[in-house]
Amino acid sequence: MSQFEVRNISMMMDLYEMTMANGYFEDSSADDWGTFEVFYRKNPDSGGFAIFAGLEQVVEYIEGVHFEEDDIEYFRSLHLFSEPFLEFLRGYHFRGDISAFPEGTIMYPNEPVLIVHAPLIDAQLVETAILTQINHQSLIATKAQRIVRAAKGRGVLDFGARRSHNIDAAVYGARAAYIGGVDSTATVMAGKQFGIPVSGTMAHSWVMCYGDEYTAFCRYAEQYPDSAQFLVDTYDVLHSGVPNAIRAARAVLNPKGKRLKGVRLDSGDLAYLSKKVRRMLDAEGMEDCMIIASNSLDESTITSLLEQGGCIDAFGVGERLITAKSDPVFGAVYKLAAVEQNGVCTPRIKVSENIEKITNPGKKDVYRIYDDTGHAVADLLTAGGEAVDLSKEYPYIDPQKPWKKRSFTNCRAKKLHREVIRNGKRVAPFRSLESIRAYVKEQLETEIWEEEQRFVNPHRHYLDMSIGYYHAREELLDKNQWK
Amino acid sequence: MSQFEVRNISMMMDLYEMTMANGYFEDSSADDWGTFEVFYRKNPDSGGFAIFAGLEQVVEYIEGVHFEEDDIEYFRSLHLFSEPFLEFLRGYHFRGDISAFPEGTIMYPNEPVLIVHAPLIDAQLVETAILTQINHQSLIATKAQRIVRAAKGRGVLDFGARRSHNIDAAVYGARAAYIGGVDSTATVMAGKQFGIPVSGTMAHSWVMCYGDEYTAFCRYAEQYPDSAQFLVDTYDVLHSGVPNAIRAARAVLNPKGKRLKGVRLDSGDLAYLSKKVRRMLDAEGMEDCMIIASNSLDESTITSLLEQGGCIDAFGVGERLITAKSDPVFGAVYKLAAVEQNGVCTPRIKVSENIEKITNPGKKDVYRIYDDTGHAVADLLTAGGEAVDLSKEYPYIDPQKPWKKRSFTNCRAKKLHREVIRNGKRVAPFRSLESIRAYVKEQLETEIWEEEQRFVNPHRHYLDMSIGYYHAREELLDKNQWK
Repeated sequence: MSQFEVRNISMMMDLYEMTMANGYFEDSSADDWGTFEVFYRKNPDSGGFAIFAGLEQVVEYIEGVHFEEDDIEYFRSLHLFSEPFLEFLRGYHFRGDISAFPEGTIMYPNEPVLIVHAPLIDAQLVETAILTQINHQSLIATKAQRIVRAAKGRGVLDFGARRSHNIDAAVYGARAAYIGGVDSTATVMAGKQFGIPVSGTMAHSWVMCYGDEYTAFCRYAEQYPDSAQFLVDTYDVLHSGVPNAIRAARAVLNPKGKRLKGVRLDSGDLAYLSKKVRRMLDAEGMEDCMIIASNSLDESTITSLLEQGGCIDAFGVGERLITAKSDPVFGAVYKLAAVEQNGVCTPRIKVSENIEKITNPGKKDVYRIYDDTGHAVADLLTAGGEAVDLSKEYPYIDPQKPWKKRSFTNCRAKKLHREVIRNGKRVAPFRSLESIRAYVKEQLETEIWEEEQRFVNPHRHYLDMSIGYYHAREELLDKNQWK
Repeated sequence: MSQFEVRNISMMMDLYEMTMANGYFEDSSADDWGTFEVFYRKNPDSGGFAIFAGLEQVVEYIEGVHFEEDDIEYFRSLHLFSEPFLEFLRGYHFRGDISAFPEGTIMYPNEPVLIVHAPLIDAQLVETAILTQINHQSLIATKAQRIVRAAKGRGVLDFGARRSHNIDAAVYGARAAYIGGVDSTATVMAGKQFGIPVSGTMAHSWVMCYGDEYTAFCRYAEQYPDSAQFLVDTYDVLHSGVPNAIRAARAVLNPKGKRLKGVRLDSGDLAYLSKKVRRMLDAEGMEDCMIIASNSLDESTITSLLEQGGCIDAFGVGERLITAKSDPVFGAVYKLAAVEQNGVCTPRIKVSENIEKITNPGKKDVYRIYDDTGHAVADLLTAGGEAVDLSKEYPYIDPQKPWKKRSFTNCRAKKLHREVIRNGKRVAPFRSLESIRAYVKEQLETEIWEEEQRFVNPHRHYLDMSIGYYHAREELLDKNQWK
C-alpha cells in the first residue's frame, strides 16, 4: 500500500522550499536545473557504517507529489507567493531524475547516496520529504542491525510502537527495523501494510484481570494452545510466575499434546532470573520452552546479558530501538552540487565556517571497490562519467592524507547508483522488503569487514577520490574562499 | 482536520491487544469492565515536570476507531482469532468512558493523567494508540518548553521536520512544540493542518545557485521585500555574508522604503559571530535587523550562548527539538487499576521485581493543591469519589516518608480530571490550540514554583496520598506478595 493510498503527503515540506521555488519561478532561474545530493556526515553511535533505507517511500512520494485546491488556498493565505506560481502548482508534477544506492546498501559518511537532477524549483520542493524519509528509516535500520548483531542469532522482536514518535515512526520504523534484521514486529499496522511478521501475546493486565496468575495462564492457554507465551513477572517470577506457568502448561497444554512456547521476563535482573528460570523449566522437561526478555533493551544491554550467560532465546526490544535512543538524529543533508544554466553545467561548493560542512562539489559517481576476497576495501568518488579501469593498477587519493601515494591493484569496482526516477516516473519496480532485508544480511556476511562491524572503535571505511576529481575540488575550493 | 480525515489509524495497535481482546471475548470475561490508567515514571531530562499533550488526537481516535473489511481480512489471515470475534470487530466502536487532565496541564510522575473505564476488550484495544500519542506529544511539548525557557523571551522557531522520525513526528511534533511555546514552525503540513504560524526563508542552495552571494541576496529581496532574511554563512560570515547582506539591503530594500528583517547564522562560533555581526549591522544603522541562529541548538546550547552575551534575537531549533535528542523516550504506561465483574469493582496491583514498577491500585482522583499565594504545592491522590475538604486542616501521607505527620492548611484543591469521552462519544468540544498553549504559559507564570522550573536539580513536586487511599494500597500490596 503506497503512502498516497494512505493519505496525501505532498505538503510535507519546509516553508523555505516554497519561498525559494516561488523565487526561482519568478526570477530568470525558472528554467535552470540543479543537481542536489543527499549524504550524511557521521555514523550513528560511532559505528562503522549505516544502512540506506526509505528509498521506496521516497519514490512513491516523488511519483505522487501534487497539490490540491485546499493546499493552493493555504499557500495563497500566506501572502508570499505570486498567482502565476500558485497556478503552476495546480498542475504540478515532479519533472526530474533521481538515482540512488539500492535500498539496503551499506553506506558511509560523505558519499552521495541519492542524487536529484531536476529544475531548481522541483529539486527544492522535494528536499524535506526526501530527507525525512531517508533520515528516519536509515536511522532505525542501522540501530536495528546493531541490536540484531548483539543478539548473535537469537530472536529480536520490535515492541516499540507505544514509545515511538507517533504513528509513522512506529509503522515505517517497523519497516526499517525489519530491513535491519529484526524478526517480527508487534505493530499491527506495519504488519498489515508491509507484510512483516507480527508477534505478541499478553500484557500484565491479562494476568491482573483474573483473580490469580494460574487461572490467567490457563485461560490464555485454552485460547491459544499453539502460540501461548506467558508473561511471568506480574507478581514474582521465581516463586509465582514460573511455577504457575509450568502448572498451567501441564494442566491445559500437555493433555492436548501441546507444549508451552515461551515465558517472558519484563523486569528484574534478567541475567540472574533467566538462568534460574532456565533451570526450573529444564528440570520439568521443558527444554523447548523459550525465554523471552524485554525491558529497555538495546545492543549494549543485550551484549552484557549474553556475556553474563543469560539464558535468553529472544529479545523484545522497544523504546531504545524505535527511537534509536542512544543517538536519535540521523543527519543526512541535501546539498547543491551543480547548476545548469543555458546548457552549461557548473559545480557549486559550500565553504562554511565548519570544515566538516564543506561540500564535495560537482556531479559525481560512487564506486565500491572490492579486493580479490570479495571484501569492500573502500568507496571511490569520481567525476560524473569518469572512467574507472581497475584492470590495471589504479592510483587514487585519500583526501584525508592527500600527500600519500595510493593505488588499487587486483580489485574490482561496482558503481553504486541506479536510476530510480526518470522524468518524474519510476524506472524500475520496487524490490520486495524481504529481498532488501536479505541484501543487508548478505553484504554484512560477505562484503563488509568484521572490523567495520565491531561496536567499539570500528575501522573507518575509506572514501577515496579519483585524482581528477580531487584536483577539481581543490581548485573550486580555492576559487570560492572570498565570494 | 481530524486524523481520520487524513487516514484510517484504527490498526495502530500491538498484536497482544488483539490476542487479549479475543481472549476476553471468547472467555467468560467479555462483559467485565476494567479501569486503566496512563501515567509516567520519570520527567524527561531530569526536569521538574512534564506537559500533558496529545489529548485531542486521542479523543479523535477513540471516536473514530473501527475496522474495515481489509482489516478483518488481515486479522483472519493470522489464524489467531475466532470468527465470532472477527464478526464483533466488523461493527466495533468504543463503548467506554475516558477522563483526563485538560491538554496542556503541567503533570508529574506516577499520577494518572488519563483514565479509561470500559469493557476489558475495548480498554485493551486502545492501549497503544493512546500511549503513542500521549508519549510523543508530551515528550516534544516538554522539550520545547525547556528550549523556550532557555531562550528567555527570544523567538524560537521549529526547523525540525527533516530530522524527525517520519511525517507524523514532524507534524504532531510541530503541534506539541507550539503547545510548549515555540513561536512558529517551518513545517508546512503542520501549518496547514493546525493553523500554526509558519516561517522560513532560504537555504544555502539559494545562495549557491546564483553566481555570487550579493546577487542571490538581491534576487531574494526583490521577491520578498517585506520578509527577507538572508542566510549569511555560505562562504564567510564576516568577510562576505554580512557585507553582502548590507549592500543588498541598501540596493534593493531601502529604495523601496523597506528594511532588512534579519540575517541567519547556521555554522561557526555563534556567540562570537553574533556579537561581531551585531556591531557590523548597528554601525550601518540596521539596529532593527534581527540575528537568527541555528545549528544543533537546544536548551543547553542556548543557555550557553546567552551567558556568553551572544546577540541573538531568535533561535531556529531543529533536530534536538523534534527528536528530543537528549532524552527521546517518554515512558508513559497503561496499567490496569481495577476490574468490575458482575457489578463488583475490585482494585488490582502489579507488584513487579522493580520497586518503581509497582502500581497504584484502584479507582482514584487527582487533586492539585494550591497554597494561599496561588502556587501548586503538591498533587494529592485519593480513592475515587473520596471527599477532600480543605476548609479545615487536612492530614495526608507522603508515601516516600509515611512516618511523618503532614497536613494542608489554608490551601485549596482542584480536581484535575475532566470527562472527555462518555459511551464512546466526546462530551466537550476541543479547546483551541492557542488556548492550550496559553494555558501552559499561564500555569508556569502563576502556579508552578520557579524551583520546579530550574534545569539543574529542580524541586521534586510532591505526590501525596489521602490517609484512606494510602492504607488501602498498603493492604492490597501486602495481600498480593505471593499470588
